[in-house]
Amino acid sequence: MPTTTWNRHHILSLADFTTTEYDTVLQTAASFQEVLSRRTKKVPTLQGQVVANLFFESSTRTRSSFELAAKRLSADTLNFAAATSSMTKGETILDTAKTYLAMGTDIMVVRHREAGVPNAIAAEMDRLGVRVSVLNAGDGQHEHPSQALLDLFTITTLIDPDHPRLELLKGKKIAIVGDILHSRVARSNIWSLIASGAEVHLAAPPTLLPKFFTEFISEESGVRSQESEVRSNSPNPQLFLHWQLEPALQNADFVMTLRLQKERMTAHLLPSLREYHQLFGITCTKLQLCKPSVKVLHPGPVNRGVEISSELMDDPEFSLIQSQVTSGVAVRMALLYLLGSGKA
Amino acid sequence: MPTTTWNRHHILSLADFTTTEYDTVLQTAASFQEVLSRRTKKVPTLQGQVVANLFFESSTRTRSSFELAAKRLSADTLNFAAATSSMTKGETILDTAKTYLAMGTDIMVVRHREAGVPNAIAAEMDRLGVRVSVLNAGDGQHEHPSQALLDLFTITTLIDPDHPRLELLKGKKIAIVGDILHSRVARSNIWSLIASGAEVHLAAPPTLLPKFFTEFISEESGVRSQESEVRSNSPNPQLFLHWQLEPALQNADFVMTLRLQKERMTAHLLPSLREYHQLFGITCTKLQLCKPSVKVLHPGPVNRGVEISSELMDDPEFSLIQSQVTSGVAVRMALLYLLGSGKA
Amino acid sequence: MPTTTWNRHHILSLADFTTTEYDTVLQTAASFQEVLSRRTKKVPTLQGQVVANLFFESSTRTRSSFELAAKRLSADTLNFAAATSSMTKGETILDTAKTYLAMGTDIMVVRHREAGVPNAIAAEMDRLGVRVSVLNAGDGQHEHPSQALLDLFTITTLIDPDHPRLELLKGKKIAIVGDILHSRVARSNIWSLIASGAEVHLAAPPTLLPKFFTEFISEESGVRSQESEVRSNSPNPQLFLHWQLEPALQNADFVMTLRLQKERMTAHLLPSLREYHQLFGITCTKLQLCKPSVKVLHPGPVNRGVEISSELMDDPEFSLIQSQVTSGVAVRMALLYLLGSGKA
Repeated sequence: MPTTTWNRHHILSLADFTTTEYDTVLQTAASFQEVLSRRTKKVPTLQGQVVANLFFESSTRTRSSFELAAKRLSADTLNFAAATSSMTKGETILDTAKTYLAMGTDIMVVRHREAGVPNAIAAEMDRLGVRVSVLNAGDGQHEHPSQALLDLFTITTLIDPDHPRLELLKGKKIAIVGDILHSRVARSNIWSLIASGAEVHLAAPPTLLPKFFTEFISEESGVRSQESEVRSNSPNPQLFLHWQLEPALQNADFVMTLRLQKERMTAHLLPSLREYHQLFGITCTKLQLCKPSVKVLHPGPVNRGVEISSELMDDPEFSLIQSQVTSGVAVRMALLYLLGSGKA
Repeated sequence: MPTTTWNRHHILSLADFTTTEYDTVLQTAASFQEVLSRRTKKVPTLQGQVVANLFFESSTRTRSSFELAAKRLSADTLNFAAATSSMTKGETILDTAKTYLAMGTDIMVVRHREAGVPNAIAAEMDRLGVRVSVLNAGDGQHEHPSQALLDLFTITTLIDPDHPRLELLKGKKIAIVGDILHSRVARSNIWSLIASGAEVHLAAPPTLLPKFFTEFISEESGVRSQESEVRSNSPNPQLFLHWQLEPALQNADFVMTLRLQKERMTAHLLPSLREYHQLFGITCTKLQLCKPSVKVLHPGPVNRGVEISSELMDDPEFSLIQSQVTSGVAVRMALLYLLGSGKA
Repeated sequence: MPTTTWNRHHILSLADFTTTEYDTVLQTAASFQEVLSRRTKKVPTLQGQVVANLFFESSTRTRSSFELAAKRLSADTLNFAAATSSMTKGETILDTAKTYLAMGTDIMVVRHREAGVPNAIAAEMDRLGVRVSVLNAGDGQHEHPSQALLDLFTITTLIDPDHPRLELLKGKKIAIVGDILHSRVARSNIWSLIASGAEVHLAAPPTLLPKFFTEFISEESGVRSQESEVRSNSPNPQLFLHWQLEPALQNADFVMTLRLQKERMTAHLLPSLREYHQLFGITCTKLQLCKPSVKVLHPGPVNRGVEISSELMDDPEFSLIQSQVTSGVAVRMALLYLLGSGKA
């Protein structure tokens, strides 16, 4: 592993991640990617440490990815699934977290349907003065930092496999397409991509990308936005809003599609799935607007024929979807390693 | 472990298993049975490899058996249970499998309510040119190869504990009793027992053993069948159909009972459970028709007093039910070992 | 680990635990507590052994605690959760247990909603002449021995951290408050505290602490009881019943609160939660009746503001709730070690 100084104790949001932190994660993940190519894919780094997966919201792929990452670092894992838990017995979330703390947990990986739960747990741990780290594995519509970091790793290693780093994305045009309003994946990706110096183009129907969206982002990040469809100019044009797909795809280097929650339909935010696919679904044909070397990402699970056509999803020339999953294990090993190795 | 050549990449069905393959599985399982009698029951054979249990259909005993087999080979295990999965989020089965592939899974153990799912996953993996192995842990009414192999191991080690092999069953009379029509266990057992040269007698009510059943089997296997109740003679009398229990039990060496799905009742395929037990349930009394050394098997879980009487189930002289479970771990270690050790 | 003679094969109840057994558990747990303070918290003691968690009743904290204890002893663990099990397929509990036996389980940790299930499984294992140990992880309203032992460890290590032993509680006044009638935790605690020579004061509304309660206890233990509110004198005044809180708290050294099952409300055993809290909930104010050094315990999960006030629960001066959880892992390691190390 690269010797590095890592001072962050929890990973809750990418809003204040520094370039050095991004690069440390990317380089550490690259080292683990190399470990994963060996016959024996385990390292003893976190032997004797306990990683508790506190998934208050159901998950298959993220939980399995974190569990495998922990096991490959030789940590012991505890799985908490809301369905069979004592949560139904009236215990508060913080009390559940403190129970896992008292059992000897070193790192808590937390997913919850409500935004802010991982932050609340981390604040409580800090208040108690304990060394437990909290890793946000997706909270409501807030953030999903490990997903954005694995997306970053996937596209930067494509450009420079041996030395993935943030600056590789400077000046790249990256489209994020779909249900941006409700997406924690989009929120985390916006932070990392803006930090890299990329041009970020958001495309969605107005119901899923309201005008105030960029104001919200700008306020927190200090980044000024431009709504290319709505307003014409902005002093710091790194973030663009589009209510149509085409201007976002034009000359794009990467297209990030988002999962569409079918529940949105019943809330009258969307017309039919067919119409959505026609307007905002990504297909091989629509991809011709982009650079020839364009690649497509999706955090999964995919609704084939809705966010993305089946044909495109299976096309190894354009689709990075499988690479993202593979990157996920290496990036999560890196995050657990960076949080856990300081606990000697 | 015996040094052997093993070329099969997936274990999906026993329909085309060769004698050499059966014997390799039996001998490898015997070696692991010996490991399991030691104080420390673990071997480092699959260290660093990942076995994913993809159980789209619920299971206790088969999943635990595979999980323990994998752990005793020092593999890391990932468990997927349909109940808490993203399958409800609209992802296809093949996409779920590809996600586990991309995470670095080496062997997928697949159970599904629909026949053919493990084959479809295996075909997709082969199409992608990846080295992942698929092991069918029960698919619909199709096959359950590991169950049939553990049955085979249980009865051949009874005859020759040190050198279990297929030919030991040549000329033995083996009755399979119960809901043959819907049983994947029966289908897999029929392949292995016919391959061994045993005489296989199927007994069930006509609704659960239609005349066309043997035609189906014969077509695939090339074996000609004889319906002893229906037609009187057949040129290759290795497989016999009976609509009554007695002729199947007469002089039998082994009796394999099958689990009765109580749902069959509501489909009007069965009279009452009591009547079923009277006609096709195995009891100590009915066993007197068989050879004195007869042994009874059941894949579990058992409905006591339906397929088999409580008294018989608990009689260590006749019941092999506990041995089958113990054999299960050794046989599944053998299967994982044979699939996994070629991946160096 | 202390070299010791330990002859008990199952841990089902504390009713007949000897002083030597209590002290062996406490001293062994103290050794493991020391192991848990090291950087690498694992020992190879139970390597190659299988601990099966058979949780027929849902649980988060107890299951996680046992699972972590087993992993830290390097055992392999199998988890059985009733929700996704074949129990729904009509198999009996004893058959499920025998299946795990046949797979090679060394220790079964059993929780069930019905009292007596762990005893029944243990009796069946003994009848079969096998060496499997059964550990009761809570059965109906009967007992929860590991909880009472961790409570004992928590309060004796507070008095003498290096040499926790039963006699340290001689003459201490300990109040147990809440739904005593339905509490398996209370039942197990009563056995250990009476064995220690402590004075045990039970306080609850009459519906949750009927007069006959002590008669039941006395009959089994030979201890004579005194109902201080009801009758005035008793020859062996080690166990006292109170239908009001105050006399139980007066000068108490320790207060054990119990979880209130909200279902009791609908059974008309309780007035409103607010009234219950007013009468029997423990608060900082009420605690002033006790000794200044008093400490409060709760087995969790806690209904804040019902059994105990939020303020008191979070007060590190008085609350031992977090210590109990930590003790739980050490005590369960001790129990698994004592049961498992004799199996060489």
